[in-house]
Amino acid sequence: MNGANVVTLTTDFGLRDWFVGSMRGVILSLYPKAQVVDITHEIAAGDVRAAAFALAVSYRCFPTGTVHVAVVDPGVGSDRPAVVVKTDAGFFVGPDNGVLSWALREETVHEVRRIENTAWMRQPVSRTFHGRDVFAPVAARIAMGMPWQQVGPVVAGFERLAWPEKSQVLYVDRFGNAITNIRTKPRCVTVGGRSVRVVDFYQQGARDEPVALMGSSGFLEIAINGGNAAAVLGLRVGTPVEVD
Amino acid sequence: MNGANVVTLTTDFGLRDWFVGSMRGVILSLYPKAQVVDITHEIAAGDVRAAAFALAVSYRCFPTGTVHVAVVDPGVGSDRPAVVVKTDAGFFVGPDNGVLSWALREETVHEVRRIENTAWMRQPVSRTFHGRDVFAPVAARIAMGMPWQQVGPVVAGFERLAWPEKSQVLYVDRFGNAITNIRTKPRCVTVGGRSVRVVDFYQQGARDEPVALMGSSGFLEIAINGGNAAAVLGLRVGTPVEVD
Amino acid sequence: MNGANVVTLTTDFGLRDWFVGSMRGVILSLYPKAQVVDITHEIAAGDVRAAAFALAVSYRCFPTGTVHVAVVDPGVGSDRPAVVVKTDAGFFVGPDNGVLSWALREETVHEVRRIENTAWMRQPVSRTFHGRDVFAPVAARIAMGMPWQQVGPVVAGFERLAWPEKSQVLYVDRFGNAITNIRTKPRCVTVGGRSVRVVDFYQQGARDEPVALMGSSGFLEIAINGGNAAAVLGLRVGTPVEVD
Repeated sequence: MNGANVVTLTTDFGLRDWFVGSMRGVILSLYPKAQVVDITHEIAAGDVRAAAFALAVSYRCFPTGTVHVAVVDPGVGSDRPAVVVKTDAGFFVGPDNGVLSWALREETVHEVRRIENTAWMRQPVSRTFHGRDVFAPVAARIAMGMPWQQVGPVVAGFERLAWPEKSQVLYVDRFGNAITNIRTKPRCVTVGGRSVRVVDFYQQGARDEPVALMGSSGFLEIAINGGNAAAVLGLRVGTPVEVD
Repeated sequence: MNGANVVTLTTDFGLRDWFVGSMRGVILSLYPKAQVVDITHEIAAGDVRAAAFALAVSYRCFPTGTVHVAVVDPGVGSDRPAVVVKTDAGFFVGPDNGVLSWALREETVHEVRRIENTAWMRQPVSRTFHGRDVFAPVAARIAMGMPWQQVGPVVAGFERLAWPEKSQVLYVDRFGNAITNIRTKPRCVTVGGRSVRVVDFYQQGARDEPVALMGSSGFLEIAINGGNAAAVLGLRVGTPVEVD
Repeated sequence: MNGANVVTLTTDFGLRDWFVGSMRGVILSLYPKAQVVDITHEIAAGDVRAAAFALAVSYRCFPTGTVHVAVVDPGVGSDRPAVVVKTDAGFFVGPDNGVLSWALREETVHEVRRIENTAWMRQPVSRTFHGRDVFAPVAARIAMGMPWQQVGPVVAGFERLAWPEKSQVLYVDRFGNAITNIRTKPRCVTVGGRSVRVVDFYQQGARDEPVALMGSSGFLEIAINGGNAAAVLGLRVGTPVEVD
């Protein structure tokens, strides 16, 4: 039923401590054949929206049946629920705080279950690290093909982050490219009071010239060929962008 | 005899150069089925204690038989010995400078051997990168089930880092949580001249309120819900903590 | 014919976004048994020479037949060609901008082909992320043993970065060690107007004393035992070094 043995991880745990390694250890202890792939662990601490975006623009690269785990979880240890969402693409596992919801916007959701089965968790369950004690073992058991319905009862739905209505910057990547929520190629772009030329790829921009182009995630992005557009133009998440 | 094919790596090599990739290449060249898991490579350069702590609080997440390699090795190339320590949990491999010793505090040690067999090393052995030339190939050979006793002669013991007697901060994580050496939940905590409320999980803290809680590693930690306790309170490794 | 299932990645994509995870997802979707190993993703944005050096000093650690992918690609989306180079060591895959050329300096090149077969690419091919859409699927198909000649037509050669003639710093690593292009151990080294003692390993240096030694990559490097030589001496890529 479940063809893949791939588990992806998207977290704000960083790579400087042992948190991600611990999750991998728990997964491999239960399911030695798991292929665990990091999407990123360098989400800013507590930034649920950035994690939701990173997962949304990358999960389609993975095999059908993949178990996608996202853990940005300021409410860990409280009574906030945790969920597994089953879609055509695979499984989405995480705290029910919206971190999964942008990936699920274009998915057909088959079923949502709350994670409640303590037999599927690592014991004792800490109140500060559900990545290790809840999400890793649940993901391993789903990936290895155990009946995922055992994870807990069906629930009506999951928390959804609002998708911004107005055109704006949604994410700034390591190159300083400012990725917007705009899905179609415009003729004109204005951002930070400045008109920006629309091009097809980075090197069409002159040196130091801000340009706009349809990026690899399917969204318009503002970039500078060989430079850092966000730093130069003062762009950050939420900065308005005008098009056409 | 050796059930696991997992090798963990804990180093100060960082991820910006090719050092970790080289270790993985050496391991996979010898043992293509190895599952190599990073605990962390972002230990501050030469910080043996931080690496010892990271390994101590994470190795229990891995399968029995795992080969744990820790390389923070300021004495590389000198005549400092290197060791393999066999316990119920698996194998611990590294320079004999104490980096393994905090993980081994609660382990029953079966045997300690010095790494001397040059046939188990990558040739020629450099004098600056034993992670690649000594520890990686030794770990691969142990993981693949070669008789580990061939690594070198039995020795009486291994170097132990002193575990601090007085209550203090032992480690500061990426969230700014200050993890102490205190193993039991106290009623009152004072740190930096400030009384800190004891709670059960992060979100029980009010905004900007420092709290103390039993963390996922089994130690008391000082945290701020959504904030950076170490930065706000000026906590660092060695800062005294008063309890009860 | 192709014994290995290892794919290495050397890029400037960083680990804070989803770029590397996306490449891994594409590779695993095509070839679930691939072993994908990161050499590094923290090459400074657009620094083709640093990536060329990182690959050159690490590829020999990997099994024969490994597929080495290097993507530092300021010209992505333009008509710059991309190539696969077959040697005794395996396959080298990337944009034809010199990023592969320092690894290939000591290799016997069997054949060079331009990547043109769109059936080997992920569709639609974006104009900003060939790591995901071109290089990852090409690497996966080569690693899984598909006839690599299908990738595209034979071409006469590949772009070569000049190897610096004069003695100089080529790379500064995370420890601040300044790695030069000097391959033989000298008697005297002068750098930054300062005479530097030649030793065999780091700890032979006194505290704060700059030393020179033959490093693990086979090149002379300038180091400070427990310190950061590049920061203290003001060394950077291109700084001249005088020997003997």
